[in-house]
Amino acid sequence: MSLKIKNPKDSLVSMTELVLPNDTNTLNNLMGGRLMHWMDVVAAIACQRHSNCTVVTASVDNISFRQPIQLGNVVTLRAKVTRAFNSSMEVKIEVEAEDIPSGSRFSSHSAFFTFVAVDKAGRPLPVPAIQPETDEEKELYDGALRRRQLRLILGGRMKPSEAKELKSIFDIQ
Amino acid sequence: MSLKIKNPKDSLVSMTELVLPNDTNTLNNLMGGRLMHWMDVVAAIACQRHSNCTVVTASVDNISFRQPIQLGNVVTLRAKVTRAFNSSMEVKIEVEAEDIPSGSRFSSHSAFFTFVAVDKAGRPLPVPAIQPETDEEKELYDGALRRRQLRLILGGRMKPSEAKELKSIFDIQ
Amino acid sequence: MSLKIKNPKDSLVSMTELVLPNDTNTLNNLMGGRLMHWMDVVAAIACQRHSNCTVVTASVDNISFRQPIQLGNVVTLRAKVTRAFNSSMEVKIEVEAEDIPSGSRFSSHSAFFTFVAVDKAGRPLPVPAIQPETDEEKELYDGALRRRQLRLILGGRMKPSEAKELKSIFDIQ
Amino acid sequence: MSLKIKNPKDSLVSMTELVLPNDTNTLNNLMGGRLMHWMDVVAAIACQRHSNCTVVTASVDNISFRQPIQLGNVVTLRAKVTRAFNSSMEVKIEVEAEDIPSGSRFSSHSAFFTFVAVDKAGRPLPVPAIQPETDEEKELYDGALRRRQLRLILGGRMKPSEAKELKSIFDIQ
Amino acid sequence: MSLKIKNPKDSLVSMTELVLPNDTNTLNNLMGGRLMHWMDVVAAIACQRHSNCTVVTASVDNISFRQPIQLGNVVTLRAKVTRAFNSSMEVKIEVEAEDIPSGSRFSSHSAFFTFVAVDKAGRPLPVPAIQPETDEEKELYDGALRRRQLRLILGGRMKPSEAKELKSIFDIQ
Amino acid sequence: MSLKIKNPKDSLVSMTELVLPNDTNTLNNLMGGRLMHWMDVVAAIACQRHSNCTVVTASVDNISFRQPIQLGNVVTLRAKVTRAFNSSMEVKIEVEAEDIPSGSRFSSHSAFFTFVAVDKAGRPLPVPAIQPETDEEKELYDGALRRRQLRLILGGRMKPSEAKELKSIFDIQ
Repeated sequence: MSLKIKNPKDSLVSMTELVLPNDTNTLNNLMGGRLMHWMDVVAAIACQRHSNCTVVTASVDNISFRQPIQLGNVVTLRAKVTRAFNSSMEVKIEVEAEDIPSGSRFSSHSAFFTFVAVDKAGRPLPVPAIQPETDEEKELYDGALRRRQLRLILGGRMKPSEAKELKSIFDIQ
Repeated sequence: MSLKIKNPKDSLVSMTELVLPNDTNTLNNLMGGRLMHWMDVVAAIACQRHSNCTVVTASVDNISFRQPIQLGNVVTLRAKVTRAFNSSMEVKIEVEAEDIPSGSRFSSHSAFFTFVAVDKAGRPLPVPAIQPETDEEKELYDGALRRRQLRLILGGRMKPSEAKELKSIFDIQ
Repeated sequence: MSLKIKNPKDSLVSMTELVLPNDTNTLNNLMGGRLMHWMDVVAAIACQRHSNCTVVTASVDNISFRQPIQLGNVVTLRAKVTRAFNSSMEVKIEVEAEDIPSGSRFSSHSAFFTFVAVDKAGRPLPVPAIQPETDEEKELYDGALRRRQLRLILGGRMKPSEAKELKSIFDIQ
Repeated sequence: MSLKIKNPKDSLVSMTELVLPNDTNTLNNLMGGRLMHWMDVVAAIACQRHSNCTVVTASVDNISFRQPIQLGNVVTLRAKVTRAFNSSMEVKIEVEAEDIPSGSRFSSHSAFFTFVAVDKAGRPLPVPAIQPETDEEKELYDGALRRRQLRLILGGRMKPSEAKELKSIFDIQ
Repeated sequence: MSLKIKNPKDSLVSMTELVLPNDTNTLNNLMGGRLMHWMDVVAAIACQRHSNCTVVTASVDNISFRQPIQLGNVVTLRAKVTRAFNSSMEVKIEVEAEDIPSGSRFSSHSAFFTFVAVDKAGRPLPVPAIQPETDEEKELYDGALRRRQLRLILGGRMKPSEAKELKSIFDIQ
Repeated sequence: MSLKIKNPKDSLVSMTELVLPNDTNTLNNLMGGRLMHWMDVVAAIACQRHSNCTVVTASVDNISFRQPIQLGNVVTLRAKVTRAFNSSMEVKIEVEAEDIPSGSRFSSHSAFFTFVAVDKAGRPLPVPAIQPETDEEKELYDGALRRRQLRLILGGRMKPSEAKELKSIFDIQ
């Protein structure tokens, strides 16, 4: 069975969470671990939407947390699949925080996760290819190859010398 | 006040969790987000031990999940600070899973997180320097500089051309 | 201070939840109580967006659950303020469920909640008036008066004979 | 198999909950959604007692929250089936809150839920008829018909002109 | 201020819990730890009712679990203060489990906990004396002294030779 | 099949928990019930390690809580099987609390639980015998017989006159 090509927007998921006491540390800031848990859930749903399969988290790229998110803030997470490779999908998650009484709202951070589509026995299943539409989607699609090489190198599954696309990050001739 | 130098072993924390139904997806595998939540807690405690301060998650390095962890498995997480930089600490987390009835036990994966020590207003506080003791600790200490440069580049806060130590990963003259 | 009039779309919130084992009864169906908990959270965020205040649940209108929602389903909740009355807001919540592997998706049900904006001591605060834009928003705005009268009667705070708008429901001359 | 008639008191359930930090909003008041979750659990147990079957929530009548319930308060919920209709049951839930150190105790609110008894495939099962005993139980039994008509009308499954019993609420000849 | 004497029935609390997936082990039996958590909550509420104070758990007597409690069972816990000693209270908790579809119901076990009434700084506060009324309450009141001696001996705070009342358990002249 | 003798250290488990808001009472102290829940989990894992079987909690010995544990503290629980009897195991749990910013650390309390190894139908399974190695382990091994008799007497399954070993506690000729 050949799989229909899909667009990134077909997988878009938006999730909103309220920061409750048990989500925070002793400074009343949202704990990083809770936030990563939410990021994983929203990203998994986006990959399920793209693949119409059960999916499992394969990797998480470098995440850099900036401004703390406070108790009582509203956190909005948006996830969209950027590119598919056989049975794996790269998904971008954007996190935004909002202090509603003061009306302030800031982009907290973004990150890339990858998921693999699997059958009931946990074996990989093929997923549809993706066709980016907007300029931003095209740029994310192109960068996915580079990020994938970095992942494979950091995971010890590719030699740096083989990572042609990655060299552009390091601006190396 | 000058801070006493500490050893990596002073910060060692071990945490054991039992995989319960709500921690799993529809394949009865531990969800990646729950595991990252546990990794964040164990790593934060290690950094609190090192700094005797409240700490906040600053970044998470690339994590690559391999073998799935099942419902009913026992997960052991071990965290140890590898190196300190002013007010930030790099911590290595090792995750092991165990299926007790069958006696099987496997190393799931490891990861590096960084934390920043902060005061009650969230401002950075200095942390003790670290003195590695074993060969493994020395290697982790040396590699920390390289990983830090990669983090700064990926976070858009350093130019690749400035990352001298990092070049060794990519085997570049 | 006079409050700026707002549009319903300014308060729109979308929330996505994955049905986990602890959310279900022994038939693996999502429990009604868990779903109402999610409805309350999404509706409260919408009312916070409209009022830029802390809000408390004042009432819940009749909810009729139809088709059961299953373990592993993705539930999407959308909330939008329909009308404001001094310090109270009526909000409509729409719930949709999706079985991603089979690609089936159905509208589960909708409901109206009301919230009151309060200050730190719990005293009511005025909220902005609302200006509906689309035809659907105008219909919801008009119906809000009728639903409010029904709420007041059922809560024992209005005599049925005073409920002029309500009579249209019962088609009474 | 003919089902034995039961009395309302056979289904009486009492449940006590302590309001913990994660149950509260930023004003330290119990969130409406958490309370509805508890109401659903206690009501489901009462309906299971009446029917000796698995039950699913079918509808929730208008709930009007009055006084806020605080962090640390003890909440007592009591549920009792008021009337049975083929496979559905109406159940009344009464909620009381108590601030133990000060000794104050107040009736928070009451509500009616309906549940349907189902078999393992989710198909409706017949439930025993009910025989009210006390005056209060008889009044609740009689009112159940009227509330049922209102539910059917609000759920779009009955025309208002057919709702004979309901007219008494609106005092219409 | 002299404290009013109270009766055991003034402190009676009944709590009902439904056994959910996350409360169970891989055999679908309720985990002992979750049950002890519920026992602690219901016992604390009974002691708060008796003392009108905040209370902290001081000790737990030997508990012997008999028959397993299953997923989907309804657990009813009843707690009543048996005797007060200055600022501490002994409370008896009775646990009953019910499989509603089959109509089976069994007494699972009972246990004694002690709590201490404290002020905001955690210092002990005097609590009312207790006046048992029924025969069962009188027997529990008398036995409390004996159980207290056993607790003090097992906690290393009393020499066995001083425990006059306890000797009756061991039938020693 | 004859079971291999094991040493207590083979079953050693260490678990670390951070005290979060929902784990505490209104004095910001860790609730006894939550702590017992953690004790049960760590002890169950130790007994699973010893028996390579699923285990169920059979009994809990007298626990005496001393110093309160505060919000934000790190709690370390260590469990080790002390002796095995056919299909049951006695396990000792030691609890330590740590206030990291102040560097204070104290032994909170210890307790003995017993577990039974069971098959999928819940029937008891034989477990390996234990060979204590250190002096402390030998003392715990010897004392286990005495504690077992006390458990049987308190559970009503042994007459005090038959409890020879127990008499040493009470210093009786």
